[in-house]
Amino acid sequence: MATCDGSEARAALERSVLRRVPPLLTDLYQFTMAYAYWRAGRHNEPAVFELFFRDNPFGGGFSLFAGLSDCLLFLQNFAFSDDDVEYLRSVLPAGTDAAFFSYLKELDCSAVSVSAVPEGSVVFARVPLLEVCGPLAVVQLLETSLLCLVNYASLVCSNAARFRLAAGPRRRLMEMGLRRAQGPDGGLTASRYTYIGGFDLTSNALAGRLFGIPVAGTMAHSYVTSFSSLEEVWPQTLVPCGGGGPIDFICLVKGWLGRVCQLLGSKTSLVREGELAAFLSYAIAYPQNFLPVIDSYSVSCSGLLCFCAVALALCELQYQPLGVRLDSGDLCRQSLEVRRVFKECNKQFSVPQFESLIIVGTNSISEQSLAELNKKVSNEIDVVGVGTHLVTCTRQPSLGCVYKLIEVRGRPRMKMSEDPEKSTLPGRKSVYRLLDTDVLPLFLSLFVVVII
Amino acid sequence: MATCDGSEARAALERSVLRRVPPLLTDLYQFTMAYAYWRAGRHNEPAVFELFFRDNPFGGGFSLFAGLSDCLLFLQNFAFSDDDVEYLRSVLPAGTDAAFFSYLKELDCSAVSVSAVPEGSVVFARVPLLEVCGPLAVVQLLETSLLCLVNYASLVCSNAARFRLAAGPRRRLMEMGLRRAQGPDGGLTASRYTYIGGFDLTSNALAGRLFGIPVAGTMAHSYVTSFSSLEEVWPQTLVPCGGGGPIDFICLVKGWLGRVCQLLGSKTSLVREGELAAFLSYAIAYPQNFLPVIDSYSVSCSGLLCFCAVALALCELQYQPLGVRLDSGDLCRQSLEVRRVFKECNKQFSVPQFESLIIVGTNSISEQSLAELNKKVSNEIDVVGVGTHLVTCTRQPSLGCVYKLIEVRGRPRMKMSEDPEKSTLPGRKSVYRLLDTDVLPLFLSLFVVVII
Repeated sequence: MATCDGSEARAALERSVLRRVPPLLTDLYQFTMAYAYWRAGRHNEPAVFELFFRDNPFGGGFSLFAGLSDCLLFLQNFAFSDDDVEYLRSVLPAGTDAAFFSYLKELDCSAVSVSAVPEGSVVFARVPLLEVCGPLAVVQLLETSLLCLVNYASLVCSNAARFRLAAGPRRRLMEMGLRRAQGPDGGLTASRYTYIGGFDLTSNALAGRLFGIPVAGTMAHSYVTSFSSLEEVWPQTLVPCGGGGPIDFICLVKGWLGRVCQLLGSKTSLVREGELAAFLSYAIAYPQNFLPVIDSYSVSCSGLLCFCAVALALCELQYQPLGVRLDSGDLCRQSLEVRRVFKECNKQFSVPQFESLIIVGTNSISEQSLAELNKKVSNEIDVVGVGTHLVTCTRQPSLGCVYKLIEVRGRPRMKMSEDPEKSTLPGRKSVYRLLDTDVLPLFLSLFVVVII
Repeated sequence: MATCDGSEARAALERSVLRRVPPLLTDLYQFTMAYAYWRAGRHNEPAVFELFFRDNPFGGGFSLFAGLSDCLLFLQNFAFSDDDVEYLRSVLPAGTDAAFFSYLKELDCSAVSVSAVPEGSVVFARVPLLEVCGPLAVVQLLETSLLCLVNYASLVCSNAARFRLAAGPRRRLMEMGLRRAQGPDGGLTASRYTYIGGFDLTSNALAGRLFGIPVAGTMAHSYVTSFSSLEEVWPQTLVPCGGGGPIDFICLVKGWLGRVCQLLGSKTSLVREGELAAFLSYAIAYPQNFLPVIDSYSVSCSGLLCFCAVALALCELQYQPLGVRLDSGDLCRQSLEVRRVFKECNKQFSVPQFESLIIVGTNSISEQSLAELNKKVSNEIDVVGVGTHLVTCTRQPSLGCVYKLIEVRGRPRMKMSEDPEKSTLPGRKSVYRLLDTDVLPLFLSLFVVVII
């Protein structure tokens, strides 16, 4: 697990959060409303907003709440720059009183207080997640930014928790969705909150640096296909783990390849020389970190054979190869075949290291396919890498949090709306959770909202 | 339309792009692969990658390509900081040669060249969007960042184009999805590229400042529900547009409310005093920008009556009210009723300004609901505001672009894969588009990829 120095990482994180949510990243109407409050002399009236969602996501029974620490950081640093205010002057209607812009320049959140459920809590529909109290115009201005910070963080955190429940507690889960995320910050947020939601690893290096999340990854197909012949392997030697003179590693691997092909009844002529060269070269660079992707051509005719030959040679030099990654086709079926071959190698060549090799599966994994994979006794996948369906939350890509005014000057406020669904519950609330000791508290507890 | 000074906006934009995609925001395996290339002395071999998607998004026949300018900016500024490199040293396997980290510190993209289709082009599945040539290790390191920058930008731009096609050319479209986006940057990217995809307006103030996109917005329900009585209206007077002494605006509006209720056979007792106060107060603050949301309580019993009373008073003072926003219920049905009332007001009170009032509709609009709305002759919605379904691309929240190695040292490279779908087309290509002059070129043209 990689962590970086606490204070430096925290400073980098704070900079990162503040840059991604400048206070101008909000809806224009927050400013027109703030002006109208200000013009009516109501801007400092004490007001309370409540942030909640109306339905549990993914058709499920719960959500996780996330994004609180970013919200607090945003509030602590909330201030408009002169440039921001000049821009607003250029887009607000011409009659806007100039004194309003001076007011904006002085604004901060020192008079704002927030009550919230703790970050990472299990929460339910229509329960207040954040209650924001402060001067009417200021708490109005915060709406869009707070929603933006809570909505996706909570959604992707909840999605990760569902993947974790589908995968069961044993299998390791790796998030690897950056390239398919809805923008760079979406990817970073996903790495951060899927870890809170129950993932073990991320492929995202910046998430490792900023949040101390364990990072992992070895190679892509491009690495494999970049090699075409053994002549590209350099250096060609490897020093044994325990020390000693350099060994001709290509020669050693070639010998093992012959034995593996013989054992498995495979033809060495079908083995892709480029794939073997790629694996060799990677093993020489990282003899303690050998976990290639084995389906760039054909798992059974080439990738698996190349892996076994290189891994056996590594074992001979007292290194411990890590395992393989499967990235296409029927992962369950292939994992069984791979595991069978590992066992056969151990049986034939007495390499107990082959018993602890891991199999990583990565191929458009969804919550459903993970649940199916988990039900099958017949698969041997130890680590599952998940990208698109996890980070973009394919089943429901938005949580739909809202931020509603519930009190002004101590008087409860309510919106009725043409849709009864969109009406709000007026007034401040206390939330109680009544646990039945006989059942799992997580899903079957009763939530009570009391208007106080 | 709001624009800001060109050079200042460009500088702000560049800072914003560079901060959101630091070069460490990538998958860890890019570094392990780069090390293995470097260790084998292959890092400077000339290589070519190609960026493309395998299927047109949303089950459609085309996509738009977007994200190119961000990619170029990213490449121009690509460099690792000392902190980045120290972090990598802490997470890469222990045996990594120290000289590799010196190599990373010196890296830039000065030897990288990019060929691409122009930003905003109509593109099709499996056609190269970007071709990236350069030293093998460097172009490998760029993979995740380039994918991340192109994937969502192109997806949301394409989604916007589909909404535009569904809406027809006449209706104005406004993007207002920031609060529901997958993170702050997701929201900003959506505002930017939905404008390119055919939207007219955004609610996002920062998008206005950075990209010069026209911004709009007036009020939310919270503004309306924050008022409970006419005593909160201040100032209570308004100076006529043409000049003169201040007029008691509350009194004027009360008079109009009585006449409107009489005309429409409505009861003044059902009108919400808070709603009337909110509209009054907003109109006094922004008499030239009066466009309230009229469904905080009941459109027909209160919101529409309050609007007409305030708007008629504004007209009497020679101001031009803008229109109304409907945010819940059956938008089409309500828009007909609203238009009917506008016409009746004009007929009864001779206010030709009421003929040019606009009706804005915003209520979970999807591409499908927009297409249905557009088919109905019987609706009067002039501007449609779209949020969640547009920015999160509910129907398909990821484009699935990939970045594949196609050539090393002048030799074509190919991945075969266990899934034929995942196999790649080797070698560099020229793309031709053959247009049939008899048909619409956009959708029925033939795309030819020639391997050169």
